[in-house]
Amino acid sequence: MASPGSGFWSFGSEDGSGDPENPGTARAWCQVAQKFTGGIGNKLCALLYGDAEKPAESGGSEPPRATSRKAACACNQKPCSCPKADINYAFLHATDLLPACDGERPTLAFLQDVMDILLQYVVKSFDRSTKVIDFHYPNELLQEYNWELADQPQNLEEILMHCQTTLKYAIKTGHPRYFNQLSTGLDMVGLAADWLTSTANTNMFTYEIAPVFVLLEYVTLKKMREIIGWPGGSGDGIFSPGGAISNMYAMLIARFKMFPEVKEKGMAAVPRLIAFTSEHSHFSLKKGAAALGIGTDSVILIKCDERGKMIPSDLERRILEAKQKGFVPFLVSATAGTTVYGAFDPLLAVADICKKYKIWMHVDAAWGGGLLMSRKHKWKLSGVERANSVTWNPHKMMGVPLQCSALLVREEGLMQSCNQMHASYLFQQDKHYDLSYDTGDKALQCGRHVDVFKLWLMWRAKGTTGFEAHIDKCLELAEYLYNIIKNREGYEMVFDGKPQHTNVCFWYVPPSLRVLEDNEERMSRLSKVAPVIKARMMEYGTTMVSYQPLGDKVNFFRMVISNPAATHQDIDFLIEEIERLGQDL
Amino acid sequence: MASPGSGFWSFGSEDGSGDPENPGTARAWCQVAQKFTGGIGNKLCALLYGDAEKPAESGGSEPPRATSRKAACACNQKPCSCPKADINYAFLHATDLLPACDGERPTLAFLQDVMDILLQYVVKSFDRSTKVIDFHYPNELLQEYNWELADQPQNLEEILMHCQTTLKYAIKTGHPRYFNQLSTGLDMVGLAADWLTSTANTNMFTYEIAPVFVLLEYVTLKKMREIIGWPGGSGDGIFSPGGAISNMYAMLIARFKMFPEVKEKGMAAVPRLIAFTSEHSHFSLKKGAAALGIGTDSVILIKCDERGKMIPSDLERRILEAKQKGFVPFLVSATAGTTVYGAFDPLLAVADICKKYKIWMHVDAAWGGGLLMSRKHKWKLSGVERANSVTWNPHKMMGVPLQCSALLVREEGLMQSCNQMHASYLFQQDKHYDLSYDTGDKALQCGRHVDVFKLWLMWRAKGTTGFEAHIDKCLELAEYLYNIIKNREGYEMVFDGKPQHTNVCFWYVPPSLRVLEDNEERMSRLSKVAPVIKARMMEYGTTMVSYQPLGDKVNFFRMVISNPAATHQDIDFLIEEIERLGQDL
Repeated sequence: MASPGSGFWSFGSEDGSGDPENPGTARAWCQVAQKFTGGIGNKLCALLYGDAEKPAESGGSEPPRATSRKAACACNQKPCSCPKADINYAFLHATDLLPACDGERPTLAFLQDVMDILLQYVVKSFDRSTKVIDFHYPNELLQEYNWELADQPQNLEEILMHCQTTLKYAIKTGHPRYFNQLSTGLDMVGLAADWLTSTANTNMFTYEIAPVFVLLEYVTLKKMREIIGWPGGSGDGIFSPGGAISNMYAMLIARFKMFPEVKEKGMAAVPRLIAFTSEHSHFSLKKGAAALGIGTDSVILIKCDERGKMIPSDLERRILEAKQKGFVPFLVSATAGTTVYGAFDPLLAVADICKKYKIWMHVDAAWGGGLLMSRKHKWKLSGVERANSVTWNPHKMMGVPLQCSALLVREEGLMQSCNQMHASYLFQQDKHYDLSYDTGDKALQCGRHVDVFKLWLMWRAKGTTGFEAHIDKCLELAEYLYNIIKNREGYEMVFDGKPQHTNVCFWYVPPSLRVLEDNEERMSRLSKVAPVIKARMMEYGTTMVSYQPLGDKVNFFRMVISNPAATHQDIDFLIEEIERLGQDL
Repeated sequence: MASPGSGFWSFGSEDGSGDPENPGTARAWCQVAQKFTGGIGNKLCALLYGDAEKPAESGGSEPPRATSRKAACACNQKPCSCPKADINYAFLHATDLLPACDGERPTLAFLQDVMDILLQYVVKSFDRSTKVIDFHYPNELLQEYNWELADQPQNLEEILMHCQTTLKYAIKTGHPRYFNQLSTGLDMVGLAADWLTSTANTNMFTYEIAPVFVLLEYVTLKKMREIIGWPGGSGDGIFSPGGAISNMYAMLIARFKMFPEVKEKGMAAVPRLIAFTSEHSHFSLKKGAAALGIGTDSVILIKCDERGKMIPSDLERRILEAKQKGFVPFLVSATAGTTVYGAFDPLLAVADICKKYKIWMHVDAAWGGGLLMSRKHKWKLSGVERANSVTWNPHKMMGVPLQCSALLVREEGLMQSCNQMHASYLFQQDKHYDLSYDTGDKALQCGRHVDVFKLWLMWRAKGTTGFEAHIDKCLELAEYLYNIIKNREGYEMVFDGKPQHTNVCFWYVPPSLRVLEDNEERMSRLSKVAPVIKARMMEYGTTMVSYQPLGDKVNFFRMVISNPAATHQDIDFLIEEIERLGQDL
């Protein structure tokens, strides 16, 4: 790579002696360029100065800049999406692009113009003065634009317009004030990696068709297992399409480990199996049990304490109860970072119970797994190293683009035995390389999207310490929010004490409700506050944060922070915005 | 959008009168520019001519070109990935990019440089003189480069290098001579759409966080159901992570339809269920049965005729057999386009049998569904309109980037009843918009990747007629291949007759085997031919085509054509290459 001033964008004097530090030549050259018509003079000047707006006034301390072709355009937008004048997209169609003969030039121009639209969106995403969302109701949006599919092709001008329209109505999930989901933020290296993944357009089926990605999955899963604390990082795993599927894999493998005959004979051949998870756990455990033919009635929900942590004594009691009925406890899924409270189940106590009763211990750390990257916070997952399997979604707390979820399994080979079907027409056994790198037969999927590259590239770019800094910062912001509102008028915390994750759960109580007694009418009115504030947030488009009821608690806000763009001022803004939008309720 | 010659890249004469058709001025201007040092003269000339190599010799018939910033660089590569001299990536890290203060400029430069690497790869992908694959054995590749993850961050120069290295070893799945999988090719509009999807970085969970994508899924699935032939396009469906999962969904929904109590009570509460599919069907049916607690023994494989089509009389016989044993037939999965032979099961006859015995009819048209877009070929799926559910993967025959698989269900509401868990903390019922657009609770996944946009945008760009043309062309190429080799010395067809899909299955018989009698020794030697030729193909990197054994047939080549870049000359090349690489065996 070139160093500053050594390449194209350094300027020599007119007599030919190079002087990269002197931009005066550029200025002179620019004056000459102004003789040209059609805007070319301005463009050349802009090019020479690396800035579309004006010649650099700052003098010679910095070399002139031109970071991209945008610099060669006279519009005031940065990045701009000005079309090249000699490409008229209204006359071009998809059939004019590669692999068409002569398709190279229009392809490069088209892709570059798409890219400019995307870059513009990226820059806007981080701009606090833009809306998080330009909200329209479904029927409005369906009518506002013609989304229908037709027999005849549209030209590339229309296609570029669709890209712009789609982004106009998109949620800016990278916006510093987007707090709506556990997955927020837009990482630039992750984004670049996802673009590359799309361009490589292959799947994780075999080493043959995805050599690098298969190796990177191997390297990355091993590293994650090391961080979990399994000796030498040994074990198995897979990147699956989301935490729900990862949890379903765990249940599937746990069942197979105990009753391998279930693969051929089905559930009819085994006794009634029981899974245990907390009442605050993710609904995917029940969904998985329904799908796997276990049935939701066989998922026992264990009581939680007031902070949302599973109560180990209740777990043991329910296990014994199941055994007394002649049922077979086969899985405990502890949660490390519950969806709403961000609670961490007591993993060491759960591990002891699983060991005592010989039950597969799964840890659903989809949300909390990221904390393993932080020396300050990883104690919250103490005991995870004793799990048989772990779900960990880097697309949540670690800010990897969607989607990126790992299931990690302590015992090697189990996934393969559980899922393989020996389809010789797909997994040829006489290929010329080491077939242990073919991952297809251990997956439920046949084709499998490449989800690892964005995590791997981000990890190289940030280092483990970079993830740690991000996580520590998010947790610090959550504590900042908690400290502000815990004693502020109009706020009530849903549970007491400092949050363990970034989840801060609270009610905003409008002035009109503050005077009411704590009775049913107040509860009923309070339950309507968060939905109205949220609807207003979306209509103004200023911020987004989630709300929900839980158990006997009526609708409350659940603030979560995983967005690397968020700062203290955004937290302050959120509080002010809730008050602005809710004070009249 | 600007029309040709009207903007920046049109040139005026030096006196100021514009003359876009005359590039002479540019030539003069270029001569002046040559006075500059540091390569700037060349760059400016290149910019003026829109070509990095030389002034356009072709005269004034076409306006001068400059399609992107690459034109402003003197390197001979098109597209180039030259860094801007004033951005020294060796001193920059991920933390210098957005959302960092002052992050905009390095971000735009970095993303643009990534894009240049990607564009270079795209152009190379279509270049027949480049290798399809730069093959290395897993151990070599692991050692050749340091892929490990570390505590400390790497600088952006290293990150860009990783992108280049990753692509260097990638399979060029868009290469005109890549025939290895059912999914081949690289569609430019689909690629652009996938980049946009990455940039929007959201998921299909709710309308709230993916308004446009949720509506596009609604519009697109409806259109696909119309094409299947369900009245008014009514019904249900979802984009799932691949055909195997789509097939699993079908099995799950069919079971629920017959025994809704299975959701709560599990398989213990229902009689033994039996699924039927052909011996040539995809292994995902068995995988699904294993996962769902049905068991692989309960998947009965129905005999096929010599072309790989399910024999209806055998299906009926096996259904009766199962019923006599007291088992409950609940699903027949017919295949429209088998993986190896490309066979279409007789859907009308299967539909009659399903109707007679009240069994859920599923059609796995993952591979063959694309033929529904062709007026010439859609008769091969006659009867699909009588199915209860259909798997259709646009990422296969329709060339949509990976991954894009749809499950379509005739009865509306069934998916929702089957999979919903009413998690009020995730699917708030008091939101301010029409909640029927929240798709999360009908899916097995919680978060779900946006797979629809690339299909939708390609459909707008190509129209139904564009997909039709692509499919007709691929089938014509398959017939071309079949016609060449059916009587050519050294080739034996695996089954007789013209292929119904693009699958052409054949043995290449090297000269040394042609003289042998048809006995076991010959079979044994023939079985080793395809693996050796395939290994040589990969080592030379010239082409890739799949081989496999099937039933009592030893290893044979399965050629499939879904690649829009493939032409007659590529088919000719494949034949010559097989002969070149195999003649000494």
